[in-house]
Amino acid sequence: MKGFPSGEVTGRETRLSAQLLRKETLMKRNDFRGIIPPLITPLTPDGDVDVASLRRLARYVVDGGVDGLWVLGATGQFHTLTERQRDVVTDTVIDEANGKVPVLIGCIDSSPDRCIERGKRAKASGADGIFATAPIYDKVTQVEVLAHFRWIHECIDLPLVAYDASYATQTPMEISTVVELAEEGTLVGIKDSADFSDFPHLLAQLRHLPEFSVLTGHTCLADAAYLLGAAGCVPTLGNLIPSTYAKIREAAKRGEWAAARRSQDEAVSLHNVQRCWEPASIAIVAKSLGLCKTVLKLLGVIECSNPGRPYPSPTPEQEDRVRIELERLGMLRSESALSSPSGR
Amino acid sequence: MKGFPSGEVTGRETRLSAQLLRKETLMKRNDFRGIIPPLITPLTPDGDVDVASLRRLARYVVDGGVDGLWVLGATGQFHTLTERQRDVVTDTVIDEANGKVPVLIGCIDSSPDRCIERGKRAKASGADGIFATAPIYDKVTQVEVLAHFRWIHECIDLPLVAYDASYATQTPMEISTVVELAEEGTLVGIKDSADFSDFPHLLAQLRHLPEFSVLTGHTCLADAAYLLGAAGCVPTLGNLIPSTYAKIREAAKRGEWAAARRSQDEAVSLHNVQRCWEPASIAIVAKSLGLCKTVLKLLGVIECSNPGRPYPSPTPEQEDRVRIELERLGMLRSESALSSPSGR
Amino acid sequence: MKGFPSGEVTGRETRLSAQLLRKETLMKRNDFRGIIPPLITPLTPDGDVDVASLRRLARYVVDGGVDGLWVLGATGQFHTLTERQRDVVTDTVIDEANGKVPVLIGCIDSSPDRCIERGKRAKASGADGIFATAPIYDKVTQVEVLAHFRWIHECIDLPLVAYDASYATQTPMEISTVVELAEEGTLVGIKDSADFSDFPHLLAQLRHLPEFSVLTGHTCLADAAYLLGAAGCVPTLGNLIPSTYAKIREAAKRGEWAAARRSQDEAVSLHNVQRCWEPASIAIVAKSLGLCKTVLKLLGVIECSNPGRPYPSPTPEQEDRVRIELERLGMLRSESALSSPSGR
Amino acid sequence: MKGFPSGEVTGRETRLSAQLLRKETLMKRNDFRGIIPPLITPLTPDGDVDVASLRRLARYVVDGGVDGLWVLGATGQFHTLTERQRDVVTDTVIDEANGKVPVLIGCIDSSPDRCIERGKRAKASGADGIFATAPIYDKVTQVEVLAHFRWIHECIDLPLVAYDASYATQTPMEISTVVELAEEGTLVGIKDSADFSDFPHLLAQLRHLPEFSVLTGHTCLADAAYLLGAAGCVPTLGNLIPSTYAKIREAAKRGEWAAARRSQDEAVSLHNVQRCWEPASIAIVAKSLGLCKTVLKLLGVIECSNPGRPYPSPTPEQEDRVRIELERLGMLRSESALSSPSGR
Repeated sequence: MKGFPSGEVTGRETRLSAQLLRKETLMKRNDFRGIIPPLITPLTPDGDVDVASLRRLARYVVDGGVDGLWVLGATGQFHTLTERQRDVVTDTVIDEANGKVPVLIGCIDSSPDRCIERGKRAKASGADGIFATAPIYDKVTQVEVLAHFRWIHECIDLPLVAYDASYATQTPMEISTVVELAEEGTLVGIKDSADFSDFPHLLAQLRHLPEFSVLTGHTCLADAAYLLGAAGCVPTLGNLIPSTYAKIREAAKRGEWAAARRSQDEAVSLHNVQRCWEPASIAIVAKSLGLCKTVLKLLGVIECSNPGRPYPSPTPEQEDRVRIELERLGMLRSESALSSPSGR
Repeated sequence: MKGFPSGEVTGRETRLSAQLLRKETLMKRNDFRGIIPPLITPLTPDGDVDVASLRRLARYVVDGGVDGLWVLGATGQFHTLTERQRDVVTDTVIDEANGKVPVLIGCIDSSPDRCIERGKRAKASGADGIFATAPIYDKVTQVEVLAHFRWIHECIDLPLVAYDASYATQTPMEISTVVELAEEGTLVGIKDSADFSDFPHLLAQLRHLPEFSVLTGHTCLADAAYLLGAAGCVPTLGNLIPSTYAKIREAAKRGEWAAARRSQDEAVSLHNVQRCWEPASIAIVAKSLGLCKTVLKLLGVIECSNPGRPYPSPTPEQEDRVRIELERLGMLRSESALSSPSGR
Repeated sequence: MKGFPSGEVTGRETRLSAQLLRKETLMKRNDFRGIIPPLITPLTPDGDVDVASLRRLARYVVDGGVDGLWVLGATGQFHTLTERQRDVVTDTVIDEANGKVPVLIGCIDSSPDRCIERGKRAKASGADGIFATAPIYDKVTQVEVLAHFRWIHECIDLPLVAYDASYATQTPMEISTVVELAEEGTLVGIKDSADFSDFPHLLAQLRHLPEFSVLTGHTCLADAAYLLGAAGCVPTLGNLIPSTYAKIREAAKRGEWAAARRSQDEAVSLHNVQRCWEPASIAIVAKSLGLCKTVLKLLGVIECSNPGRPYPSPTPEQEDRVRIELERLGMLRSESALSSPSGR
Repeated sequence: MKGFPSGEVTGRETRLSAQLLRKETLMKRNDFRGIIPPLITPLTPDGDVDVASLRRLARYVVDGGVDGLWVLGATGQFHTLTERQRDVVTDTVIDEANGKVPVLIGCIDSSPDRCIERGKRAKASGADGIFATAPIYDKVTQVEVLAHFRWIHECIDLPLVAYDASYATQTPMEISTVVELAEEGTLVGIKDSADFSDFPHLLAQLRHLPEFSVLTGHTCLADAAYLLGAAGCVPTLGNLIPSTYAKIREAAKRGEWAAARRSQDEAVSLHNVQRCWEPASIAIVAKSLGLCKTVLKLLGVIECSNPGRPYPSPTPEQEDRVRIELERLGMLRSESALSSPSGR
């Protein structure tokens, strides 16, 4: 592992093996493209990881045509899970994916050393890549952002993707910072959930690095992001309607933008069902999680909609309202056949 | 431990023992008053916990006359330390305090379950109390804040103090939330680092609970907080000038407000030395940590001023500027005799 | 004028005339579509309105193919101009436009009554429509936002467009508020400069009102906005490269999204020239104004790049850097022939 | 007037006259100390300035023992009033004060030139001083803040007080900026409504300028501000209980801090009556205005509690709740005798 001095690593064989590894890593960079949904983490009623549901969910989205799995992000509620639960999620998804699509494991935490602890675990479990935000909790400057990602990269020998979640970290990732980290090889990609009006600049400043993967985190702007030249999208709703996002990707590849728009609009309609949680009595993450888990439960992919502590569970009334909306949108029919647990 | 079903807890003895425990707990509530500095965590040059320096620091502030120790808060950089390092800090401080003053261990994390993991460790190590903020990372509503503290209290049988660090968590603790948690016995106190203009209201709304401990986290407003009726202060600068804060407390007790003001002003002058870190190239926490660690190093209390990753270490020029300021303020003389490691 | 009781307005003629007026107004609603640049306000070196330059600028953008003029917005620095200067700008642009394209006059201020004072002046000058943000200075709730726009609409008999400038007003315009104001006829359109990730929802919720004009204010996202179904764009850079934005509009109309993208990318490159103002020593508006005015001066459209008090004027070094960038981008050649004041 | 070149100003007489003027100005600086309530602006039911009520209010607070009047601040709702209404307020208060206490007129607006328009009017009306915030609407840097206040000072020959209302302007006034403007004579004082935890630093950095007046804008922290060394307070509640604030001032002067505390606590209790506006359906300013106007109406000082557009008027239920709270606090008796309009 890089960054840890190792006396016995001296011979020619080692250097060759390192070259092979590097080449393989470079090839993998191109893998983090397309639709990479941020997997939710299904929980049991008492708050533990529901491994069987998680496996079904991973199969459901892979069968739906996605290009990778984004695990233990905010949507995967890395922040509510204990270390042990994070381990379970990591192992389960990597095992279930079984090499069909690359798996990116989230190593988000409040310092580089804490991220590295997670990164070591991800490496040991066989992850294809890891991702991290700027340190959570403390607002830091770009000096610290640079040091943060460099130290993680130094210590963990896996491709590293940055996640600009400045709405939560309060620390923006300036475009010049991303470009510097991309040019020096610290990062192989970025998931951008920041202000979309800067997205065209981010893409323009990284155009000279075609291997570098610029992904949008905006679930309702996948078509727009593709039009602008993004490498892909990490859509929360990809958990629910993976095949719809695959259609957006395919239409975008063919330059059929009106078709991409129509598929995206289906996602916008589904996203709007979040208003079933009005009046605004719970946190934004809880609304999004509540919607995702309720829909996946109604689709038969997961067993339980428990959003985990400290979030309140969806009420039966909320579930009913979601069901009615889904029926109105015709979504229960179209997706459920694919995913019924009884059908497996 | 509360919150975990336990079949054999049925008899009269158990109830009596629970009563004794409760009484003892109630008595302890009064212990979390006065000057309770948020201990910094000294690090070695390579970033590990410097146990010897941490022991010296704990002795230094206890000898200086403080009333308790606040461990693994933001100033204690809980956020940059690994789980193992947090364990070391917890064990070291509790061992060194040795019952002379109560020790409060920070259990700050991104969910109640994660806080509880830390709380179990604190309980096992013999902590006198624990503290937590609202969940970090996700902005949540008061519904979740209530659930968060209740679940921690349910699971950890130690007095629980809330810490309103909304500048970092982005989640305010509304006064009505604190009052509800205080009245029901979930919390025994609060450290308030929020907008001080609400502090008079917080105190007024909690006046009917004289056992409840309202502490300010504003290091330059200890005298004002005492005037308003606070139970004490958690001053960052209490690491550096514990005896000055003890003087503020004593003057406040006697109603000698001009004297309290003079001591507080010494602290304000010291706090202003932070400007040695200008121009603003590093994060706010790093400035504060940088000042604290540099001064403690100059005073001979700790060995090294390393602020820990990802923060840049103070430069020799910054250290020189701090030294000059301290000499100008006459602080190197007055405190160093007390604390020289060679003198021990 | 609506909202002011008027004893003599009683007869049949009046009602007919009101119907005609209403019909005319309804027809006008469709006019606020397409590319409607927010005109900058050229100033003389001592800070007064440079009327001749303003006339040239209006001609320049109309000749460039825009569909309307957005006057006295933030880009038009309504906020630095005195009432008298605002009058001069209003009269000049309306006179110069001379009915070729509709002119929307900004009535942004800190209360509805203050906006109405501006609205009366706009009406008297012959404006085709007016626009306003939520009240500036005070953060208000949606209750006040509704009351604000309704009272303006009640008092000023001109089509009213809302401008969501919540980055400056700190008051968001919730989608449900916009829909309510649109459905009841208070508003005929909205310029949205808020978080673009909500833009698909704004469009979806207003799709049943095809007359209602949804415009984006994001100068680098005109192509994306068109793809999503927007009625147009209010691009700051439309001051500089109106014909490029006209090309985006035309390409979008024909569904030639790759062509739209290419034109938009030219605008993104030009927008990036703002970095000539680094390091960040002045306000964001000043950077944007500084760029616009410097480019327009280099293009020969306006005489002077004074951004107005309290903003510092571009330095000769900044102007040189901009000139070099423009030459590199090939923009001085392509646009200047069109607009040279000497050529008129 | 300063700042406008004037050919004929050359002789010795002029210089002497300038010296006299300067001396007079210097003397006036000491006038802006003590309790200077930010006068609310009473409105008629249809939203115009209620001149008779405004006169009664000015008499009420002057009779209550205040040291100056702060007119057309946020509490005076400068932001909702038209230019004409601002003129009426300016003239009325200056006329009613009649030299008994100094009158400071607010010149808050979105640019220095706009502030200067108001400043000219204030000068013409006979104001003793003016105050301004950083420009409203646009977030600016300290470069622009310096230019803003310098240009106002250059153009208006009246003592100038800065008002840090960064919660509304989004532009902080850094301590170094205030010190620079104080040392060069641009400012004679500052009303600080920013984060109180910086207030000790603001005072410490300005201690070498004893003529400079540092006032707090925090209505519940007058006693704390006096303890820290402030020159006075601009308390919203000074409109309602001027004599209570005069007691705080007197107690502070004598060093009787417990007495100051008791009086301040009465104000805190009154301030808490704002919760009668819960649940939070209206803007913060509207809550504060609603409380002030309702109490002043109940006290018989003003006729009508209309908060002005776009704020909703207090409901009869809210008024009843306020009345009950005031009776509970014993406030209707103690103050109303003093101020009954029928008693005059």
